[in-house]
Amino acid sequence: MLTRISTVRCFEGQQLQVSHPSAACDCTMTLSVYLPPQADNGPVPVLWWLSGLTCTDQNFVTKAGAQRYAAEHGIALVAPDTSPRGPEVPGDPDGAWDFGHGASFYVDATQQPWARHYQMHRYILDELPAVLAELPLDLDRQSISGHSMGGHGALVLALRNPGRYRSVSAFAPIVAPSLVPWGQKALGRLLGAPEVWAGWDACRLVEQASERLLLRIDQGTADPFLDAQLQPWRLKEAAGKAGHPIDLRMREGYDHSYHFVSTFIGEHIAAHAEALHTG
Amino acid sequence: MLTRISTVRCFEGQQLQVSHPSAACDCTMTLSVYLPPQADNGPVPVLWWLSGLTCTDQNFVTKAGAQRYAAEHGIALVAPDTSPRGPEVPGDPDGAWDFGHGASFYVDATQQPWARHYQMHRYILDELPAVLAELPLDLDRQSISGHSMGGHGALVLALRNPGRYRSVSAFAPIVAPSLVPWGQKALGRLLGAPEVWAGWDACRLVEQASERLLLRIDQGTADPFLDAQLQPWRLKEAAGKAGHPIDLRMREGYDHSYHFVSTFIGEHIAAHAEALHTG
Repeated sequence: MLTRISTVRCFEGQQLQVSHPSAACDCTMTLSVYLPPQADNGPVPVLWWLSGLTCTDQNFVTKAGAQRYAAEHGIALVAPDTSPRGPEVPGDPDGAWDFGHGASFYVDATQQPWARHYQMHRYILDELPAVLAELPLDLDRQSISGHSMGGHGALVLALRNPGRYRSVSAFAPIVAPSLVPWGQKALGRLLGAPEVWAGWDACRLVEQASERLLLRIDQGTADPFLDAQLQPWRLKEAAGKAGHPIDLRMREGYDHSYHFVSTFIGEHIAAHAEALHTG
Repeated sequence: MLTRISTVRCFEGQQLQVSHPSAACDCTMTLSVYLPPQADNGPVPVLWWLSGLTCTDQNFVTKAGAQRYAAEHGIALVAPDTSPRGPEVPGDPDGAWDFGHGASFYVDATQQPWARHYQMHRYILDELPAVLAELPLDLDRQSISGHSMGGHGALVLALRNPGRYRSVSAFAPIVAPSLVPWGQKALGRLLGAPEVWAGWDACRLVEQASERLLLRIDQGTADPFLDAQLQPWRLKEAAGKAGHPIDLRMREGYDHSYHFVSTFIGEHIAAHAEALHTG
């Protein structure tokens, strides 16, 4: 079912890039999987990584330096693409970079022409775990993380699906898409009227959360998108009101780049590893 | 003298990209410098990194994950570009990727039209240290490393200039450019007849080496360029005959990519750090 695009040795494990026909997204999807050396001896827990606007499955793989920590902790890293792609998949009508190809916002679209392909939430939640069954992954132990738009995706996947993930973290996430320009543009097109956006907004979802997950966010203070698009204090406030724990760390002088992610990904993976390897 | 293109926080230090007018290369040159957090308190030793064919100053910076180790050991990383560039700089006449822009082979060209701009050896040896004087670098403590064509560059710079570098290492280097297609093409154009190539060939230079440096090479066994272009056993044999120590490590299953470099760069930086921090 998986077509192997490349297999590259890395930190004594294997960095794979694979593709497969996706029923959810009605197109061919490409993703990357890092298998740590421990996977040679049996299934290993999984940390999902969702990337941000304009990324593919490759940005995290080549820039975050995460494989070292995954190898240390015996955890697989699964990095899906950030949207459906291909000539048959409609992108932004104006060619903008903040919607469409590379910018799915990880929802299940209800509006045409997007609904046919933009089904990233159920793709990641249901289809991909089944597709990946041929790899040595222990899908009873999953955690999730992501960056920017992918941080939003990770938070929403975890908060909408209690019991699925053991921990969730994010780097510079969009936490309140209903209230910021990137989110309003995307959710309006993909989902229609604002009345239905709450189910895809971490600040609203945390109000209803039925489980208490490890929830960690790192945010750079020099991030150019901080005030207009990210506003992590909104999630801190909403989580506080709901009594959900949240560990928000403001990082002095860090920006929105993978240099920021690479600096703190080791701490995130160590925290996820603790959640994944216990119980 | 340096124009700051970007400054990004990374592992509590700063990843800089800068440019400057180069007299040696007669064009504007761009390079990257990672300053570890220790540079806030005074000059730090320098590890030069020379990249391979088709690279710019950015490949190592974004893909190797080296900043973590540089921050741990208090060492700056200086990554020059791999050639002169610009509309005024002649590239490969046939548009090939293995000569010209991104492919200087780090020599001082003697043949026209290349000689006017392709002076990368003296650029790195003499001009750049002077240009970088405004940064908190301790240029009495320098080591050098590189990848592929840049491994060749690192070996040649170290072997031609005894006393300058405290240690040299390379990942999958071209060790005998006189004997392999990439090297023959480039040296023929840049330097003319084969009689003068020996001064730019690590296997020939090690025969005459007057000092004994730490010399370490890592090479993947699954590297597609191993047999035709790299042939590290030639350097091992030449060093052995000359009585120069060499630590050649063949790495089972690794290829030529930055996934290979990222896996072992920590060990290289630790070894250079020992040479740089003692004496």
